[in-house]
Amino acid sequence: MFDDIMTPTLLLDEARCRANIRRMVEKCRRLGLRLRPHLKTAQSHVVARWFRELGVDAITASSFRMAGYFAEDGWRDITVAFPVNIREMERINRLAGKVKLHLVAENVESVRALKAGLQHPVQVWIKTDIGNNRTGLLPENSEQIDAVLDEIGQGGKLRFAGFLGHAGQSYQARGKAAITEVHQRSLAVMHALRLRYQERWPGLQVSVGDTPTASVVQGFSGVDEIRPGNFVFYDLMQWQIGSCTPGEIAVAMACPVVAKHPGRNEAILYGGAVHFSKDHLVFPDGAPYYGLAADWKGGGWELLQPKAYLRALSQEHGILRCEPSLLKQLEVGSLVLVLPVHSCLTADLMKRYRTLDGEWIGMMGGSGIPGAWED
Amino acid sequence: MFDDIMTPTLLLDEARCRANIRRMVEKCRRLGLRLRPHLKTAQSHVVARWFRELGVDAITASSFRMAGYFAEDGWRDITVAFPVNIREMERINRLAGKVKLHLVAENVESVRALKAGLQHPVQVWIKTDIGNNRTGLLPENSEQIDAVLDEIGQGGKLRFAGFLGHAGQSYQARGKAAITEVHQRSLAVMHALRLRYQERWPGLQVSVGDTPTASVVQGFSGVDEIRPGNFVFYDLMQWQIGSCTPGEIAVAMACPVVAKHPGRNEAILYGGAVHFSKDHLVFPDGAPYYGLAADWKGGGWELLQPKAYLRALSQEHGILRCEPSLLKQLEVGSLVLVLPVHSCLTADLMKRYRTLDGEWIGMMGGSGIPGAWED
Repeated sequence: MFDDIMTPTLLLDEARCRANIRRMVEKCRRLGLRLRPHLKTAQSHVVARWFRELGVDAITASSFRMAGYFAEDGWRDITVAFPVNIREMERINRLAGKVKLHLVAENVESVRALKAGLQHPVQVWIKTDIGNNRTGLLPENSEQIDAVLDEIGQGGKLRFAGFLGHAGQSYQARGKAAITEVHQRSLAVMHALRLRYQERWPGLQVSVGDTPTASVVQGFSGVDEIRPGNFVFYDLMQWQIGSCTPGEIAVAMACPVVAKHPGRNEAILYGGAVHFSKDHLVFPDGAPYYGLAADWKGGGWELLQPKAYLRALSQEHGILRCEPSLLKQLEVGSLVLVLPVHSCLTADLMKRYRTLDGEWIGMMGGSGIPGAWED
Repeated sequence: MFDDIMTPTLLLDEARCRANIRRMVEKCRRLGLRLRPHLKTAQSHVVARWFRELGVDAITASSFRMAGYFAEDGWRDITVAFPVNIREMERINRLAGKVKLHLVAENVESVRALKAGLQHPVQVWIKTDIGNNRTGLLPENSEQIDAVLDEIGQGGKLRFAGFLGHAGQSYQARGKAAITEVHQRSLAVMHALRLRYQERWPGLQVSVGDTPTASVVQGFSGVDEIRPGNFVFYDLMQWQIGSCTPGEIAVAMACPVVAKHPGRNEAILYGGAVHFSKDHLVFPDGAPYYGLAADWKGGGWELLQPKAYLRALSQEHGILRCEPSLLKQLEVGSLVLVLPVHSCLTADLMKRYRTLDGEWIGMMGGSGIPGAWED
């Protein structure tokens, strides 16, 4: 299988990916939550359709460009979950004329610019900092929240939808108890906001949801929708957090072996920073790693034991450290499977997937077939 | 200027870039060295032509795909400076039929596969580990070097060209003395190899050259060619190493401001890991940073003082920490210039440049104009 793979290739196990999607869809249905998956991970029409087949009709994107890419494939209800960039007013209008567009605002300036430039109605969410300390208004900052709400007003092109937060601090959590604690805090904050503002805005909604909480927590009281993204593929980081098992990781890089260094128990793989990204995890001793090797098992893959890991990456090289017994089996010219640390960034770099059936799947900015000169 | 910039955009100061190129070309001419620039940094036909205008006719690429991209634009003497990936035999043959192709080998298995598959003559360099400990044969390992040379043999399609090394450990050096020490060691190693093998291979050449040594060292005795790449743009990492001044950094990201957090002296920029890459430097206290803000000055840019820096990146967000006085000046919707930590990876992600004259310059895999849906 895959004898025709020449260069680092991102493999997608469609069955695992569809199972990850189905599990999340069913959970949301059971809990009465709207699932608005964040498609920045897969960035692919084909993968997005796997959600649509299960009845999902609302999505999240991380840029207006990405929203446009998905609108092209028929999606009509899209949240761009990033503080609105008012330099893109033309794109916003083009999108808002075509889809139910949800924007995220957190300051009076943006809202004012939107009011001045919008030609079509849009939904506006107030970005709320629920503990991530990246961006958004602090929930206790009611003065500023009120100012933004006053600027949004009523009856204009801007329709206040509710409060939207991202508990990104869950990426620092390890294990279900820690993830749940992060989540409880988000819910408490959002509940307080709802109590405060529902008199004036009775229809206001609450949107949260990152992959760790969406994967392991069951209680979503007071939440209307969740927006996890990474769970379609998962990765080593999510495994370390406790969001998934290794058997749920649905993408792996296939990397050619180009050299072996038995003296230091290392092989050199064709697969570097321009393929994996530089995101890494650390071992208990503080040493970084950029991926873990896997092997084929029953139509999918599983992690090698004992662990073999990418200890360093340069632009095109990956240095795989492994046991002498494994190194002996690896031949120059053979392929090694490597599970990525952060599948979102790896996919963003690779620009296409190959399924285990050998089909190519395209992404935004990638054609789904190798580049033109290669044909 | 740049009122039409909507999203994170990689600006290229053509005058600085051409000056960086001219300085290196003139230095090599003065020292009698062949300059074979590594074009993995710019990955651009247009930038490569700036070398050609100054008489450079040999280049380095990091993949066969990249070699093919440059062959399309008329380059006819190309080294692929990566341990040869024998899964790409078809591409190797296509290239070797069109250009003088130089490959890098470091094991008998690759050479054997090349001998079996090659349809055209190629030059072969032995990849030598000159202290980087990434890959290549250790110079003292004459048994393996001899085995590879014996496998290459004489009179076949493989022509032994010489020894090629990359002193990547110079990236750990700080300042001219440390860089020079790394360089002296490379030269000593390469000199010993030449002495040992020149009886049998009198025409053998020596190829070295990373940006730090190529930028600051003057003595290249015993070296035939150098292959620096990053110097076309430089970046904050090269400045920290001591290879350049901030005034020689020829690329900067223009990032829209989307939010301000005066309470913590931070602004949120549209510009994240999918734009900059996750490569970072650290301050003396160990805190990481992913870029430094600059401001327009006399037709180019210069670093802001006191420093304003990206303290964290997520997929699309950059968190800029700065003095209250600067934050006050930044308006939501304005642009901030940020010098990248590692220009090679930033360029690889951005896929196009915009010159200070407003022209777009394309790269491998990028059209030079924004994506189709945006038009």
